[in-house]
Amino acid sequence: MTFPTPSSLVFRQLFESESSTFTYLIADRTHPNEAVLIDPVDSTVERDAKLIKELGLGLKFGLNTHCHADHITGTNLLRAKFPSMKSAISENAGSKADVLLKDNQTIEVGQFVLECRATPGHTDGCMSFLLKDQQQNPLAVFTGDALLIRGCGRTDFQQGSAASLYNSVHTRLFSLPDNVSVYPAHDYRGFTSSTIGEEKVHNPRLSKSADEFKTIMDNLNLPKPKLIDVAVPANINCGVH
Amino acid sequence: MTFPTPSSLVFRQLFESESSTFTYLIADRTHPNEAVLIDPVDSTVERDAKLIKELGLGLKFGLNTHCHADHITGTNLLRAKFPSMKSAISENAGSKADVLLKDNQTIEVGQFVLECRATPGHTDGCMSFLLKDQQQNPLAVFTGDALLIRGCGRTDFQQGSAASLYNSVHTRLFSLPDNVSVYPAHDYRGFTSSTIGEEKVHNPRLSKSADEFKTIMDNLNLPKPKLIDVAVPANINCGVH
Ligand SMILES: [Fe+2]
Ligand SMILES: [Fe+2]
Repeated sequence: MTFPTPSSLVFRQLFESESSTFTYLIADRTHPNEAVLIDPVDSTVERDAKLIKELGLGLKFGLNTHCHADHITGTNLLRAKFPSMKSAISENAGSKADVLLKDNQTIEVGQFVLECRATPGHTDGCMSFLLKDQQQNPLAVFTGDALLIRGCGRTDFQQGSAASLYNSVHTRLFSLPDNVSVYPAHDYRGFTSSTIGEEKVHNPRLSKSADEFKTIMDNLNLPKPKLIDVAVPANINCGVH
Repeated sequence: MTFPTPSSLVFRQLFESESSTFTYLIADRTHPNEAVLIDPVDSTVERDAKLIKELGLGLKFGLNTHCHADHITGTNLLRAKFPSMKSAISENAGSKADVLLKDNQTIEVGQFVLECRATPGHTDGCMSFLLKDQQQNPLAVFTGDALLIRGCGRTDFQQGSAASLYNSVHTRLFSLPDNVSVYPAHDYRGFTSSTIGEEKVHNPRLSKSADEFKTIMDNLNLPKPKLIDVAVPANINCGVH
């Protein structure tokens, strides 16, 4: 991590290597039962639940940045371990969840806040979460597949739109202060974090014009994700499959 | 990361997935040419050098926590990209390097300090690096293979000694404040950081007595690392092979 961490903040980045997914644990030691887990993966729920318990925390929310096509969300399995936990996802994701999140809504994590920022384009229902401290200073943003480190999510299925993604990143993420840390849902090259300032300058796709971005995205020719036919139907139903 | 990061600190954790090795970049924005890279891997030198240049930094030291048996150090390749960089390793590692580090020696990273703490046991020449801020507050410790997250390095080759490792961890690492972040050289389960307080309580090996620890370590029956016959001879010579 690269942001100034207030002393009561608990922050952990966790990695699931099959789908190269990052899961993030965020909590406030002064309100230990309000921990939030962003993008849990079904296969690492045991690991994550053990860690949460070892840290003396209780889970308030299991958040998904979007309806994933490459892995099954862990929110359903987590509910069995943390009965008061609620799953949450954007109201535009087309998925079932205990809480459907609206743009600009805030989620309290003890004294900290996660501000929901709709960032559609990879899917219609992609949402980023901006972590702010007690004084409302932005610290870090969890960008899902909207903004990856020196990359971005694909826009060729699941309602993907390069124009929409470009607009989302430029208006809702690149408008943040340069020193805000960036924590994506995936990385495939061993990076673990970046900053808004760095991505504005060095992101090889999103630092370009909207037209150039569209050309790049239209010519990626990526294979279909291995798990899409299993993962999307399951994730629409909170990971139940 | 989970420690309070001073505003001028640059900190990046990088991952090499073949050997599950973490590389750490540490710098002070106010002294950009004094960046340090801990445990670089040969196969990710291009990635790391590009990042260092994008961040406007210059490399002062390439540090190795020990003579690795599972990957080839990147220090030799990095010297070609950063001609003023010096490689460094413990004087007890039995390896060539530009600087041979002594126990308790300090390395300045701009206004920050890395304090060398000899932590033998996995190998004779294992050294941990304690990052301190301008006020000498300990922030994080880079533990190499001495202390892993809920684990530790093996002690069955390369001068390994369970008794020595137990003593190192308990006297030189567990003596640090509980809130100091722990950043190891490897993780195989998707964890990225821990804290001293957590490992003292939850490390399944090192939270035990010295006798129980030795019994655990004597019965691991691990296979020989795939790369040991290539990596150790190369790493003794700063990664030249
Ligand atoms: Fe996705
Ligand atoms: Fe090692």
